[in-house]
Amino acid sequence: MPHLSKKSIEMPASPIRKLVPYAEVAKKRGIKIYHLNIGQPDIPTPPIFFEGIKKANIEILEYTHSAGTESYRKKLTEYYQKYNINVDYSDIIITVGGSEAIEIAMMTCFNTGDEIIIPEPFYANYLGFSRAADVVIKPIKSIIDNGFALPPVNEFEKLISSKTKGIMICNPSNPTGYLYTKEELEDLKKLALKYNLFLLSDEVYREFCYDGKPYHSVMHLKEADEHIVMLDSVSKRYSACGARIGALVSKNKILMAAAMKFAQARLSPPTFGQIGAEAALSLDKKYFDEVVKEYSERRNFVINELNKIPGVKCPMPGGAFYCIAELPIDDSDKFCQWLLEKFSYNNQTVMLAPATGFYSTPHTGKKEVRIAYVIKKDNLEKAIECLKMALQEYPERTI
Amino acid sequence: MPHLSKKSIEMPASPIRKLVPYAEVAKKRGIKIYHLNIGQPDIPTPPIFFEGIKKANIEILEYTHSAGTESYRKKLTEYYQKYNINVDYSDIIITVGGSEAIEIAMMTCFNTGDEIIIPEPFYANYLGFSRAADVVIKPIKSIIDNGFALPPVNEFEKLISSKTKGIMICNPSNPTGYLYTKEELEDLKKLALKYNLFLLSDEVYREFCYDGKPYHSVMHLKEADEHIVMLDSVSKRYSACGARIGALVSKNKILMAAAMKFAQARLSPPTFGQIGAEAALSLDKKYFDEVVKEYSERRNFVINELNKIPGVKCPMPGGAFYCIAELPIDDSDKFCQWLLEKFSYNNQTVMLAPATGFYSTPHTGKKEVRIAYVIKKDNLEKAIECLKMALQEYPERTI
Repeated sequence: MPHLSKKSIEMPASPIRKLVPYAEVAKKRGIKIYHLNIGQPDIPTPPIFFEGIKKANIEILEYTHSAGTESYRKKLTEYYQKYNINVDYSDIIITVGGSEAIEIAMMTCFNTGDEIIIPEPFYANYLGFSRAADVVIKPIKSIIDNGFALPPVNEFEKLISSKTKGIMICNPSNPTGYLYTKEELEDLKKLALKYNLFLLSDEVYREFCYDGKPYHSVMHLKEADEHIVMLDSVSKRYSACGARIGALVSKNKILMAAAMKFAQARLSPPTFGQIGAEAALSLDKKYFDEVVKEYSERRNFVINELNKIPGVKCPMPGGAFYCIAELPIDDSDKFCQWLLEKFSYNNQTVMLAPATGFYSTPHTGKKEVRIAYVIKKDNLEKAIECLKMALQEYPERTI
Repeated sequence: MPHLSKKSIEMPASPIRKLVPYAEVAKKRGIKIYHLNIGQPDIPTPPIFFEGIKKANIEILEYTHSAGTESYRKKLTEYYQKYNINVDYSDIIITVGGSEAIEIAMMTCFNTGDEIIIPEPFYANYLGFSRAADVVIKPIKSIIDNGFALPPVNEFEKLISSKTKGIMICNPSNPTGYLYTKEELEDLKKLALKYNLFLLSDEVYREFCYDGKPYHSVMHLKEADEHIVMLDSVSKRYSACGARIGALVSKNKILMAAAMKFAQARLSPPTFGQIGAEAALSLDKKYFDEVVKEYSERRNFVINELNKIPGVKCPMPGGAFYCIAELPIDDSDKFCQWLLEKFSYNNQTVMLAPATGFYSTPHTGKKEVRIAYVIKKDNLEKAIECLKMALQEYPERTI
């Protein structure tokens, strides 16, 4: 057969899916699995989302505008306004999920071989998109001991070379849950201006900030419009991952015109997802207050319980619905596999994401796992109980 | 500001959208425009598509499997079976429209700088996708005088170099409407085997074949499974362009495993589109018989009327809903712009796609336009009447 592309061979497989065959093993053993491994929220999609779609009276399901329907984009500016993000609807391109927003941003901003600095651990699919766009990720290590805060500016500066063209963050962060402060964003802006870099920020978890801590967006930064791109999605906001609706937002008009060429080549984002997402914009604050209360309670429970387990360390995240926990183990890949293949407690086990998949530095994150608190509290309780028992039983435990 | 990527600067703008500002001029002049410029069918989406969506009882709009729901893929194999295409559901990845199928296929098969040979005129967005994937299109000219049939094998061989990694066709073709014969496909297969090339075939118009002519798929070719990739979409089949549901189909398991990594990085195709497309699989043959009858009548009318106009030449296409007509004009870009900016007949004009956008060889297609017969026959009549009058009035006419 003809050779496949180098890119497709080197493209990393999803670190979360690597465990799927072992989950099959657990199922065959008749073991119930608590899934803390994926970021698929269990919160019901608000009914208004589906009502919007059911009410739509469409005769011909046409392409929409390549940047998304004007009506949705215009209402989206009002949504952003509530977060003090002032944009015109022409500053928005509706994308096929946050995924396509990342993909188009990378294709638009970076050349083959260009480097972008991303604090690690980072969302694993950034690796895939960067490989697809032939961009090189230079990871900068954030550490568990200060809750995965932004590494110091001088550490960034050590990594900046003539090939560096951008910095990318996720705020609040998947996988750490870290919520960046205003000062940290200002530091990033200074770096972007000083070294003439793009600053990309994936802000799909903005609804999920806890303890009354404020959400700061890169879009709030002054006098850096030409450098800033915000990446967004409705997947987590409305528990609507299957809608495949995201957005690329920037006030850099030249950048947006270039990005539009990629958007036009793929014709349009999905119509039904846009209709649902537009309908969901009418949700009142009460809906999010309740969702945030639910996640916040789960977070408090999970992080407190984790820290009670001997040898486990887990900082309290300020946002999103993930945490990274350090466990007293030799190797998180082996441990997560063992949980599915060998372990059970009361005929149950827990599926976690090895943190190794969220680091691009080799051999990093081997003692860490990502936990997504996307299941109900009574199940979370059982899941954490499983983990506790597993850590007593795991042959390669280090405690 | 930081430099944008070379790719984004070189990315071609959609040739069809270039005329949009002039359409605005026509509207301001109070002129009614007949749109023969875009491939957006006017046939209503079958109600069963929407009923499927309205009936869906979803609590959480989750990601589907990255390759699409098993249920849809399994039913899709039965649909293909009707066309004598025998595939397993694991040979199918559901994509975000045909667009993403092309994009993933290019990323999977080709390296930066690899060359693919495509008969021109070809679907304009192939240029965009190849630019995004850093693949070089080597056009091979098909000619109006034999209805845009496949160029002879020796012409292909002249273009094949060590960089050549694939051949791509669209069958039936957008923009020519040409329907490839079995012999032509066999010729392509021989080339693919002899030079170890991938053979990509975009077959999104298979429902629209006229005069009882048979549709031959690359999937019918024997003993070349490792070379063959079929690209598909429901956009035209069900007048459901906004669903954004396509498919990448190949029996090459290694290729599919590599393609899946790109599919996993972007998580999943849209749920509602998949639900609608699955529901539409229950449509009976009668539906397509009627649609084909409608398009066939329009085709006969348009092509016959065009050929009656002095200096106009237009071969009778065997499929799709496009034709390429040669007009007695100096420059199709100028002419199409003039139609919108300056011309009117009974307060009406017609919008056509200059064929220049469908050729990658510079200065080619200047006397040709693409006409999509996607409007009702009484409007087609008026549109062709406009074109006839315009060709008498156009200052740079060559007759």
